Amino acid sequence: MTISLKSALAQAHSNIALIKYWGKRDEALKLPQNGSISLTLDALWTRTRVTYSESNGPDQLWLNGQLASEPMRLKVQRLLDLLREKEASSSGTPLGAAKIESENNFPTGAGLASSASGFAALALAATAAAGLELSRPALSRLARQGSGSACRSLYGGFAEWQRGESADGSDSFAISIDETPDWDLCMAVLVLNDLPKALSSGDGMAQTVATSPLYPAWLASIDEDLTHMRQAIASRDFSALGELMEHNALKMHATALASRPAVIYWMPLTLELLARIRDLRQSGLECYATIDAGPNLKVLMQERDWPRFQAALAHWHELKALIPCRPGPGAFLVPDALAGQMP
Amino acid sequence: MTISLKSALAQAHSNIALIKYWGKRDEALKLPQNGSISLTLDALWTRTRVTYSESNGPDQLWLNGQLASEPMRLKVQRLLDLLREKEASSSGTPLGAAKIESENNFPTGAGLASSASGFAALALAATAAAGLELSRPALSRLARQGSGSACRSLYGGFAEWQRGESADGSDSFAISIDETPDWDLCMAVLVLNDLPKALSSGDGMAQTVATSPLYPAWLASIDEDLTHMRQAIASRDFSALGELMEHNALKMHATALASRPAVIYWMPLTLELLARIRDLRQSGLECYATIDAGPNLKVLMQERDWPRFQAALAHWHELKALIPCRPGPGAFLVPDALAGQMP
Repeated sequence: MTISLKSALAQAHSNIALIKYWGKRDEALKLPQNGSISLTLDALWTRTRVTYSESNGPDQLWLNGQLASEPMRLKVQRLLDLLREKEASSSGTPLGAAKIESENNFPTGAGLASSASGFAALALAATAAAGLELSRPALSRLARQGSGSACRSLYGGFAEWQRGESADGSDSFAISIDETPDWDLCMAVLVLNDLPKALSSGDGMAQTVATSPLYPAWLASIDEDLTHMRQAIASRDFSALGELMEHNALKMHATALASRPAVIYWMPLTLELLARIRDLRQSGLECYATIDAGPNLKVLMQERDWPRFQAALAHWHELKALIPCRPGPGAFLVPDALAGQMP
Repeated sequence: MTISLKSALAQAHSNIALIKYWGKRDEALKLPQNGSISLTLDALWTRTRVTYSESNGPDQLWLNGQLASEPMRLKVQRLLDLLREKEASSSGTPLGAAKIESENNFPTGAGLASSASGFAALALAATAAAGLELSRPALSRLARQGSGSACRSLYGGFAEWQRGESADGSDSFAISIDETPDWDLCMAVLVLNDLPKALSSGDGMAQTVATSPLYPAWLASIDEDLTHMRQAIASRDFSALGELMEHNALKMHATALASRPAVIYWMPLTLELLARIRDLRQSGLECYATIDAGPNLKVLMQERDWPRFQAALAHWHELKALIPCRPGPGAFLVPDALAGQMP
C-alpha cells in the first residue's frame, strides 16, 4: 500500500444485499434495525481521490468530472468532518479543505446504487490521505455514516453488517464472511430504468418503519434469515442461498407495500421479469432474483448458466443494460503509479 | 316470496371485500382466520334454479347451459347434502337427486369471482326448493360451506362476515352493516385477464398461512381495520373508506408475496393501473383500488366521477372490460312469473 500524506486514491466495489437492510433505528448515525448480508461485485466500482489542501474552506466534490449538487457535497463533507474530529483528537496537524474527485465505471444515475461503493471509497481515500491508519472495522463504521450499505463494501465477497446494540453505533459495522469465495457465481444486473427513483431508499425505509403493520414481522424474521444465509454460504448451497435471497427481497418489498401510503418501487417490467425468472427456473435454468429500492433486478446464477441466461433475455429490448458480475474485492488503495488509469 | 315445494329460482350478486378474507382456520368448514367486510354489487349476478326429483342418484349441475366439471359438481353436491341432512333431521320426505341450472349475467371465466354469487344463489334456491325456511344467518352459514365469501352475498350493500370462535362454525356467518346505503358509490370492475388463474384463492391462502412470516402481522392488524371500516361506512367517510380499502388489499397481496414460494397474483398491467389510479388521485379524481386473488382491479369512486374515470381509461386497449357497478341487493327468490327472463 502506498499512502501519500495529503492525497490518496481508493477503489471500492458495489455490493448487493442478499439479506436486505431495511429501516434505521438512528437516522443520524445510520444504525440499522436489522443485520444484513451482501455480495460485493467485481464489475461495478467507484474510484475516489481525496486531496487535502493547507487552507480552510468548504470541501469541493467532483462527481464524474462535474461539480456535485450541494446536498451531495454536504453529505461528503459531513463524513470528512468526522475524520477531522478524529485527527484533531489524535493531535495531528488540522486537515484543510479537501478536493474529492470521484468516478464510477458504470453510467451515472443508471439505477445502480453507487452510494455503497462511493462512500466506501471515500472513507478509505480520506483516511489514507489524512495519514491515519484505521482498521477495516473502523473504516466500515466510518463509511456507514455516509451511506449505511457502504459499510459492507469495505470487504470483498460475502460480508455481514452486524446490527449492533450500542446507541453510539460503535458495534455496528461489517465483517467478512468469506472474502474470496471459491464459487462459480454470476450476478447479472438488469437495468430497467435509469431515471432517479421517485422515493429515495432512505425515505421509503422511514415510511415503512413508521407505518407498515407488517414491519415488526419483517424484523422478527431476519435473525433466522441471517442464520440460514450464513449456512448456505458456508456449505456452498446455491439453491438454498438463491431461494432465501429471493424470498428476503420479496419480503422487503412486501413489507414496504403495506405502508400507508404504499411504498412501491416496482415497474410493470419488474413483475414481468420476475415471472420470467420463475419460468427459467422451472425450465431448468436455476436463477434467483433480488430487487433493491428501485425497479431493477439482480439475478444470481452459476457462472456456467450465464450464456443461456443472456440468450434467454436477448430479445428483451426494454432492458437498458445487462451486466454480468462476479464476486469482487474489498476496498483498496490504488498505487500512484496506476492512478493515471482513472476510468 | 313465492316458494315452490320442489323447484325454486334464486338470484344473488357478487360482492367485493373491502377488508379481505385471507386464510382459513378450518378447510372443511371454510372457517376464516379473520373477519371481513364487503360491498355487494348490482351489475354482476348469478341466477340458479334447483329442482328436486323423486328418484335418487347424483345431482346434476349445468353452468351457463353446459354440464359442469366433476370437481365443481361435487362441490355443489356437498352443499345440497348438508341440506339433505337438515331435512332428514326435521323428518320431512327425503330429497331426491337435484338438477341445478346456474347462469351468470357476466362472461364466464372473465376473472370475476362467480363463486360468491353462485353459492349464495344455490343456498337460497336449494333451501326454498326443499320447502325449508331458513333465516338469513342460517343461509349465510350454508353458503359459506360452499365458498367462504358467498356468505356475504346473502346481504345487499355492506356486509360483515364475522370470524366466529366456535369450532363447528355455528357463529361464523355474515350480518348486514348497511343493506341499502344511501351513498353515491360506484365500483368499476376492470377486467385485465379472463384466463383462469394459475393458483386458486384457496391454494394461495393455504400457502400464505403455512409459509408467510408476515401472516401473523396481517392477522394482528385486521381487528383495527374492521373497526375503522365500520366507522367509515357509518359516517359516510369516502376518503377514509377508500384509503383503508386500498391499504388492506395491498397488505393482503404483500402478505402473500412473502410466502415460500411467493404467491403473486398480479400481472404487469395490474401494477401499471395501480400507478394510474394513484396519478388520477393526485390529479383530483378521488378513486381507490382493491384487488382479489387475481390480476383484476376494482376501483371505488363516487358516482359523479365515473364519466371522468371512464374517459381517463378509454385509451387503455389492454383492458378486456370495464364494468361500472353500484351497491346491489342481497340474495332473493325470483317469482316463477319472472323466471322466463333468465339471462
